[in-house]
Amino acid sequence: MMKMFFLLKKQILLALLIATSLSGRAHDNVIRAIFENALNSDVAYENLRILCETTEGRISGTPEAAAAVEFTRQIMAGMDLDSVYLQEVMVPNWKRGEPEVARIISSKLGTAELSVLAFGLSVGTGPGGLLADVVELHHLSELEELGREGLEGKIVFFNRPFDQSHYNTFAGYSATVDQRFRGPAMAAEYGAVATVVRSVTSAVHDYPHTGVTRYVEGGKNIPALALSPVAANILSDWLKTDPGLQLYLRNTSHRLPDVLSYNVIGEIRGSTYPNQIITVGGHLDAWDNSQGAHDDGAGCMQSIDVLRIFLELGIQPKRTVRAVMFMDEEIRQRGGNKYAALAHERGEEHYFAIESDRGAFTPRGFSIDTNEARLAAMKALQPYFTPYGMHEFFAGGSGVDIAPLKNYYDDVTLVGLVTDSQRYFDLHHAATDTFDQVNRREMQLGSAAMAAIIYLVDALDALVTE
Amino acid sequence: MMKMFFLLKKQILLALLIATSLSGRAHDNVIRAIFENALNSDVAYENLRILCETTEGRISGTPEAAAAVEFTRQIMAGMDLDSVYLQEVMVPNWKRGEPEVARIISSKLGTAELSVLAFGLSVGTGPGGLLADVVELHHLSELEELGREGLEGKIVFFNRPFDQSHYNTFAGYSATVDQRFRGPAMAAEYGAVATVVRSVTSAVHDYPHTGVTRYVEGGKNIPALALSPVAANILSDWLKTDPGLQLYLRNTSHRLPDVLSYNVIGEIRGSTYPNQIITVGGHLDAWDNSQGAHDDGAGCMQSIDVLRIFLELGIQPKRTVRAVMFMDEEIRQRGGNKYAALAHERGEEHYFAIESDRGAFTPRGFSIDTNEARLAAMKALQPYFTPYGMHEFFAGGSGVDIAPLKNYYDDVTLVGLVTDSQRYFDLHHAATDTFDQVNRREMQLGSAAMAAIIYLVDALDALVTE
Repeated sequence: MMKMFFLLKKQILLALLIATSLSGRAHDNVIRAIFENALNSDVAYENLRILCETTEGRISGTPEAAAAVEFTRQIMAGMDLDSVYLQEVMVPNWKRGEPEVARIISSKLGTAELSVLAFGLSVGTGPGGLLADVVELHHLSELEELGREGLEGKIVFFNRPFDQSHYNTFAGYSATVDQRFRGPAMAAEYGAVATVVRSVTSAVHDYPHTGVTRYVEGGKNIPALALSPVAANILSDWLKTDPGLQLYLRNTSHRLPDVLSYNVIGEIRGSTYPNQIITVGGHLDAWDNSQGAHDDGAGCMQSIDVLRIFLELGIQPKRTVRAVMFMDEEIRQRGGNKYAALAHERGEEHYFAIESDRGAFTPRGFSIDTNEARLAAMKALQPYFTPYGMHEFFAGGSGVDIAPLKNYYDDVTLVGLVTDSQRYFDLHHAATDTFDQVNRREMQLGSAAMAAIIYLVDALDALVTE
Repeated sequence: MMKMFFLLKKQILLALLIATSLSGRAHDNVIRAIFENALNSDVAYENLRILCETTEGRISGTPEAAAAVEFTRQIMAGMDLDSVYLQEVMVPNWKRGEPEVARIISSKLGTAELSVLAFGLSVGTGPGGLLADVVELHHLSELEELGREGLEGKIVFFNRPFDQSHYNTFAGYSATVDQRFRGPAMAAEYGAVATVVRSVTSAVHDYPHTGVTRYVEGGKNIPALALSPVAANILSDWLKTDPGLQLYLRNTSHRLPDVLSYNVIGEIRGSTYPNQIITVGGHLDAWDNSQGAHDDGAGCMQSIDVLRIFLELGIQPKRTVRAVMFMDEEIRQRGGNKYAALAHERGEEHYFAIESDRGAFTPRGFSIDTNEARLAAMKALQPYFTPYGMHEFFAGGSGVDIAPLKNYYDDVTLVGLVTDSQRYFDLHHAATDTFDQVNRREMQLGSAAMAAIIYLVDALDALVTE
């Protein structure tokens, strides 16, 4: 009821504002209305709750992923949008199989079970598992130092911890993730039989953090598994006492043929330039061991919320604003690639795209991938965001799902919503990424920030350069 | 082990830096060393865990408060400080008594038990409780409109919800807290027999949020209790159907004679101006229904951590840096008042004071209470904090415990550490203020921010004006 009153008041306000020629101050008022609307709404948050509770583990190829497609389609079908549709995309179909086993077997110390999860795309050990000596490394460069003679037949244990020194945890993540992403394929070249990798996380707890590993085309594929930070500490400690210990690994993960899935799309058609597209998106898939609340259910619900805010406030964009739930960000980025290819094929023009995939924490700014003139134009919009604590407008990467647009559009401006990064890698790709870790207000500020920047770049034609 | 290596490296670095005349760039390096040290430490965080688990409910006058005094004294006694001591202070001794009861009794709808907690300093209903009609109000001004004829013998139910529209939740809190702070005393003047108040919180859940209520000297004291937001919604809904329902209230809270407690203080003596004091503090007491993790165990542990960082990095301040755990912020602010009075009595000079009491969330800046020249000097330090996402340097209130210094010192600069406010009023004064809601990195950034600003105002003599 309160929400209804609020809505009516705001619609009148906005109608007035938009009817008049908008001065800078009037734009401020629209931005304020957007933030106030978002902060007073719980629609996206409650939809995220449902998504998390009913489609947990929705990695591509699962029934949960299919359910997430249908759920988000229904949400948008229930809104007053100009169109809602699905976009076919063939996605990887990797299966974890039976619960993994990682067991230390030491003649000196006995045995210990370790918390472990196979990485996405990992092959299995075979049903009998494998048993081998362990070599602990901290950097990929140590592979070459030890060479085939030091590694053949061994399990390589990459144990470089997260670098906590960086203020921005994405920097800490980037400094460590090579051991998961490239480490297994590189170890295989030296004859290693498997790899176990310390989870790439800022937390010290007993949850393994998964994520995809990249095998080399034509290379040998060996099992690649994540140890929890606690498990990695145990294994490292035991190795100090008994370097001759062995590790028994068993996982039955395997890849099945690709299956059909979908990107889910909803649009408000542009009044003036309907063929110019503004994309706002997140990815719908999430790792099979998590609810995918922050990564990236929240980004999807925020993207739909941008459309809700435009509709509720009666903001009619000049360009088409399109919310996209991308499928398969986590494994092969098929949804994002398909979206860009189809856009090109259909002769769409892409003006601006923004993605939310850094956790639904308090927004701090935007990471901007564009040319110099448009970067300056984006930075010139920062003062609109000062009242909302968003000061960080910088050149940088945008989002995995919207980045393929660059393959077809030289002029598109791509943006990533930058949020407070402190908590993200505590839960990224782990069972700890649950709905209860999302704060309604923080999430809603993300919806508002994206709605606001879209409103501004559209209303001001801010990115139109001669 | 890692920490030890880190420490050695940093000490060498700092020794080099401090040995040379420090340029602006060199100060940047000290700031970076401070942040890196903090982000790699878990000392304060683990001490906070112990404080929360062993001294839950440490409101002034409790054994838990006494244990918190001793625990923090022992922490500082175990460090290489120049002095650690207690400062006697007589504190209020209010007791909640038996679990409160709030029961709706409606001839139309039946009965319902509501989640309820007496406010601090509330008197009791007497052992038999009380039963009365309920008048729902949203603003204190409605008391006068209804007058004695409309309120006498009634229970006044203040039900104004938290205003979610503000980006800064402290603004939402300030806009609502009058109904808890002044509402009960005002309702008593019109003959109300008790007040129940919707909890002042940004969350919608079934936890009541307590806090102190202020009776008027010589006025009539009536019981004043917090309803959870859910309970307030239930009562409001039932009143719509049955305006004649009655509410049964029972609480046995009462005040005993004041008791002796302590501020806990640790110091690094200044090398050049030992009588010039820099205070960094938090308050040690916490509401009896909570662990007091964010409010304000974290502020205490961060304050001690500032000293740890100075010691580990070998930073020798010119002025005396003093960590203070203030007792009794929540009820009568006796610790802060005593601290300021004693400072004056002893002829101390107070140069700068900073308090952390807004939750151990990611720091965003500083709220600065000083004259114009020093405000400008403080703002000039902002660029040092840009790499750490702290952009908000503004004139405003500092902290409840350090504010009394203004009564004695015209020239002292008082500062509040400003942190991300989105989550704070979800847990403020409620059972939800638990250790697991604190993120280690966010908390450690607060320690670093305070250490950094103290370092700068001391090393640069930034607040020395002619």
